[in-house]
Amino acid sequence: MERYDVAVIGTGPAGISAAITLNNRNKKTILFGRKHLSEKIERGHTIRNYPGLPDISGPNLMKAFRNHLDVMGIGITEERVQMVYDMGGYFSILGESADSMYEASSVIIATGVVTGGTLPGEEEFLGKGVSSCATCDAALFKGKDVIVLGYSSDAASECAFLAETSGNVTYFPLNGRDDPLPDSVKIVKEKPSGIAKGDRMSVETGEGAYEADGVFVLRDAVPPGRLVPGLETEGAHIRTDRSMCTNIKGIFACGDITGTPYQYIKGAGEGNVAALSAAAYLDSNHY
Amino acid sequence: MERYDVAVIGTGPAGISAAITLNNRNKKTILFGRKHLSEKIERGHTIRNYPGLPDISGPNLMKAFRNHLDVMGIGITEERVQMVYDMGGYFSILGESADSMYEASSVIIATGVVTGGTLPGEEEFLGKGVSSCATCDAALFKGKDVIVLGYSSDAASECAFLAETSGNVTYFPLNGRDDPLPDSVKIVKEKPSGIAKGDRMSVETGEGAYEADGVFVLRDAVPPGRLVPGLETEGAHIRTDRSMCTNIKGIFACGDITGTPYQYIKGAGEGNVAALSAAAYLDSNHY
Repeated sequence: MERYDVAVIGTGPAGISAAITLNNRNKKTILFGRKHLSEKIERGHTIRNYPGLPDISGPNLMKAFRNHLDVMGIGITEERVQMVYDMGGYFSILGESADSMYEASSVIIATGVVTGGTLPGEEEFLGKGVSSCATCDAALFKGKDVIVLGYSSDAASECAFLAETSGNVTYFPLNGRDDPLPDSVKIVKEKPSGIAKGDRMSVETGEGAYEADGVFVLRDAVPPGRLVPGLETEGAHIRTDRSMCTNIKGIFACGDITGTPYQYIKGAGEGNVAALSAAAYLDSNHY
Repeated sequence: MERYDVAVIGTGPAGISAAITLNNRNKKTILFGRKHLSEKIERGHTIRNYPGLPDISGPNLMKAFRNHLDVMGIGITEERVQMVYDMGGYFSILGESADSMYEASSVIIATGVVTGGTLPGEEEFLGKGVSSCATCDAALFKGKDVIVLGYSSDAASECAFLAETSGNVTYFPLNGRDDPLPDSVKIVKEKPSGIAKGDRMSVETGEGAYEADGVFVLRDAVPPGRLVPGLETEGAHIRTDRSMCTNIKGIFACGDITGTPYQYIKGAGEGNVAALSAAAYLDSNHY
């Protein structure tokens, strides 16, 4: 299997900055994310404090980042990374299906932060009735009833995919969008307060409880502790030092996932530092 | 005396970023630096890894920064800060003359780093034959012989100023420039290796020694330990935590002065963090 020097996970300002600096340093890099880069930036209002680009709109900042990647010939691998395994000396990266495996000598995590935290029960029942990935786990719920909590930008299309094979599908639109869905999908406009498990799974809201065999919680960012087993976290954040090193040798983090302030220019700065730390790690050959 | 919320010292990417974010946060800010911003940026070749501004030349990045400051109405106070005194609850900032004093509730140091370190004897004899500021100390050497080590971008004009009042002036051009100087100034194109003190001061080079009554070491950045008494340093760098706090409450640092990597985007990111930490410090009212 092709072994990359660095896998950068995330196409917000931090991941983009890391990929650009790694390209400068001639490191063989794979950048995981989305072609439209970042939902958060796309929806950003005017950004006033990204030095050099005064009063820029979110979409225009996104275009400027996109153009920078294009100028440097940096591609994006559209894959939602599910897990990073430390193989001792290198890392295996699992995408959305069992077939999509990648290898890299080092990893930079720039996945952004799960704002508002996770729901009670979400972490506890993950893999025991709760899934975070429709593409990964649709087969497990063939013909069964599922609830989809749609926090991520592409939740509706993931839900539509589930509707092809699952039984009854109940969808909670939680991403502020009003995307079209198959008629068979029941839409509930309530705010979930927690996930419980009895004979079946249930999603509670202030107004009632909804039962199903499985609950898909679709978020733009995966909680960091779930992404990399053994990674030292502090609440929703990954703990790093000033060189953006985590507690695992060869894994670096940058951007919102490392803590506040949640600011574009802070993320871009940290992406640069993480990239240079990864480059130094690779150049030291101590892996 | 007018009391600013924050004094930002330095107009490189870190200082500019800090001033922009403080302006966003409606903090009353004074930005010390130069109208042409930063010698380092001005001389920068193509910068490839400032996300959003691909393949930008140093002068054009400087123009983009300058434009951002103009758009926000942020002015620059052209004053070379000599010293910051902790007055307990606020700080006094000393400029180039005894008259130029400023007050601020907090200070962000973004002065850049003295690359290559200081000369042997430079720190030891500071104030005892060595001066770092022509404007400040010219009067002390009226009619006396001086040596000027010209590391800073404007060293030649400072030297010309000294030549008006001093005795024999010997100038070492060490800034890579070939600026015009008065005919009375003796130019020595050698590399100083140290400063010694006997009956008079002397500057040693690999090729000989040059004597005078005083030695002016003119640098773009003041070593941080000299700028703020009591500030915890680590070699040429100020020690900070991830929030860009120093060991002194109310003083923050960002950019090259906090350590490697020396990168524009890293400095800009840290400037943002330092500004928000200063804003939080001011908002907490615990000073």
